[in-house]
Amino acid sequence: MAKTRIAIAGYGNLGRGVELAIKQNSDMELAAVFTRRDPSSVKLLTEGVKVLKLDDAKDMQDEIDVLIICGGSATDLPEQTPALAKLFNVIDSFDTHARIPEHFANVDKAAKESGHIAMISLGWDPGLFSLNRLYAESILPNGKSYTFWGKGVSQGHSDAIRRVEGVKRGIQYTCPVEAAMDVVRSGSQPELSTRDKHTRECFVVAEEGADKAKIEAEIKGMKNYFDQYDTTVNFITEEEFDAVHNKMPHGGFVMRSGMTGDGEKTHQMIEYSLKLESNPEFTGSVLVCYARAMARMKSEGMTGCKTAFDVAPAYLSPLSADELRASML
Amino acid sequence: MAKTRIAIAGYGNLGRGVELAIKQNSDMELAAVFTRRDPSSVKLLTEGVKVLKLDDAKDMQDEIDVLIICGGSATDLPEQTPALAKLFNVIDSFDTHARIPEHFANVDKAAKESGHIAMISLGWDPGLFSLNRLYAESILPNGKSYTFWGKGVSQGHSDAIRRVEGVKRGIQYTCPVEAAMDVVRSGSQPELSTRDKHTRECFVVAEEGADKAKIEAEIKGMKNYFDQYDTTVNFITEEEFDAVHNKMPHGGFVMRSGMTGDGEKTHQMIEYSLKLESNPEFTGSVLVCYARAMARMKSEGMTGCKTAFDVAPAYLSPLSADELRASML
Repeated sequence: MAKTRIAIAGYGNLGRGVELAIKQNSDMELAAVFTRRDPSSVKLLTEGVKVLKLDDAKDMQDEIDVLIICGGSATDLPEQTPALAKLFNVIDSFDTHARIPEHFANVDKAAKESGHIAMISLGWDPGLFSLNRLYAESILPNGKSYTFWGKGVSQGHSDAIRRVEGVKRGIQYTCPVEAAMDVVRSGSQPELSTRDKHTRECFVVAEEGADKAKIEAEIKGMKNYFDQYDTTVNFITEEEFDAVHNKMPHGGFVMRSGMTGDGEKTHQMIEYSLKLESNPEFTGSVLVCYARAMARMKSEGMTGCKTAFDVAPAYLSPLSADELRASML
Repeated sequence: MAKTRIAIAGYGNLGRGVELAIKQNSDMELAAVFTRRDPSSVKLLTEGVKVLKLDDAKDMQDEIDVLIICGGSATDLPEQTPALAKLFNVIDSFDTHARIPEHFANVDKAAKESGHIAMISLGWDPGLFSLNRLYAESILPNGKSYTFWGKGVSQGHSDAIRRVEGVKRGIQYTCPVEAAMDVVRSGSQPELSTRDKHTRECFVVAEEGADKAKIEAEIKGMKNYFDQYDTTVNFITEEEFDAVHNKMPHGGFVMRSGMTGDGEKTHQMIEYSLKLESNPEFTGSVLVCYARAMARMKSEGMTGCKTAFDVAPAYLSPLSADELRASML
C-alpha cells in the first residue's frame, strides 16, 4: 500500500515532533518541509527531504496527501490554516479555545469550497483531553468535570517571566494541586477556584547585580499570569538552568465525578491522565496519528473541517477493522 | 425532538442499570422491558412501562428504536443478539474477548440482511478500555500497554467460590498490585506475569461446622481461577457479609508506556482509570450513551454491526456539533 505523504509547515519544536513521529509509523513518509525562514538554514533529521519556502507549497499539491501546519495559534494559524486548506488536506493544533468556533468556520468554508478535508485543534488539549471530556460527560450526565494541567512548562508564562527586567533566563512550571485532585477523586464534587487547582513554580537566572526581590515581586503580581495563583520564584545559576530545565515536559488530568442509580447516590469516577517528557514530541505523535485518519476519510469522499469529535477511533489505527476487533476490543 | 425509544431485554442487574441510565437522559425513554421470566413478577422502577415475554418482542418493532440486550455472554448473547438483530437495532455487552470475531460476524450478517444497525461488546471492558488501548497504541506505536482490573467484584470468581463445599456465602475481589502499577508508571516497561499484576481477595461465610482450612485450600488451588494468583481467604460472619459486601464495585486501569523522539528515548505515559461504585449501573450508562449514537447513525442510513471503534465520539453527546466545539473542545 502506498505510504501517506505528509508535509510539515513550520519547523520549530512541534514541526520536529511531527517529523520524529512520522519515523515511527511505517505507513507514513515525510514528503516536504515548508518554512518562512531561509530553507538552507533548516536542518532536518530525515535525509533526502526537500525544505522549501512556504510560498512555494502551492507547487507541491500533487506530492502531498496531508499538510500538518505547525504554527502558533495567536497569529499564524488563523491565517495559514484557511489559506492552506484551499490547496491541501490540512491539520493544525489551534489551541485558543475561545476562538475555535470562528476558526472552524473559516477553515470549513475554505476546505469545502476546494474539496479538501481539514482537522483543527488536535493535540492533547484541545484534542485527547477534549475527547475524554466528551466521552465522560456523555456517559455520566449527572456529574462534574475537572481538568488539571501539569506538571509542565507553560510557554506563555515562561515568556512572561523573561520579559521582566533583570531576568536573564526563566522557565515556569504549572503544577496541579495534589490535595485538590484527591478531593475530586473522593467523589465530593468540590467547587475549586483557580488558586485551589494549580500553583506556579518559576526558575529564574537573574542578570548580574539585578534586584531579586523586585523581580520576584514583579512576577508574582503579574495580572492574569500569576496574580491569581500561589507562585514560587526560585533563583538558580545558569549552569543549573541549562542542566535541569532544558526539557518541555507537560501533562495533566481530566476527571469526571458522576452519580448514577436510584436516587443518584452511586459515585462513579473516570480519570484520564498524561505524563509527557516532551510536549512537542507527544503533540506531534497525535497529529501524525490523525493524518492517517484524514487520508482514509478523504478517500471515502469526506470534505470540510473536522475535529477529534468527528473521527471514528478505528480510522486512527494502522490495523484493519478485523485485526482491531480480534486484538484490541 | 422525539425521544429515542429504548427497550431492555433481560431485567437483571444490568437491565436495571440501563433503566436507571435512561432516567438520567431527557432525550431517551424506556419503551418496554422483555423478560424470560413471568412478566408479572418483574417490578420496574419506571411507571407505566410494559413488561412482556421476550417471545412477544417481535410485535413491538414499530414502538422501539433501540433494543439493549442485557443477557450473559456465555450462552444468552451468542443466540439472542443475532436473532434480535433481525427485528431491531440492537446493543449488547458481549465480553468473551476470544469469541468477539465470531459474534461480530453473526450479528453483522443478521443486521445487514434486515437493514438494522447493531453494536456489540459495549461497556467498559470491552468498550471504554478498548477505546483507550486503541487511541493510546495508535498515538504511541513504540510502547507497551497494560490493563489492570479492580478493585472490584468478579462474578465468575464469586460463583466459583460459592460452588466449594461448606461455603454459604462468598464474594471475590480482584485487586491490582499497586507496586506493579507504579513500576509501569515509571516508564520502565516491565514484563509482568499474571501473579505480578493482580491478587484475589475472598470473603467467605462458612456453613456451620464446615472445615475452614479445607475450604481455604480448595479455593486457593482452583485451576485457572485462583492457582496462578496470590489469594487470601477471609472468613467472616453473615452479618458482616450483608453489611459490607452488598455492592458491585469495579474499575481498573489502562496504561500505555511509550517512547518518542530522536533515538526513542523520551518517555510518554497515558493512563485511563475507572473507579466504579456500581459496575452494572456504569455499564448501563455506557450502553444508553451508545443507544443515542445508534439512533443517529441509523438515521444517516448506516446498517450492520459496529463496535465502539466505529462510532465517532460526537454521536454520543446530546449536544450539537456547534455546542460541542464551543464548550468541550
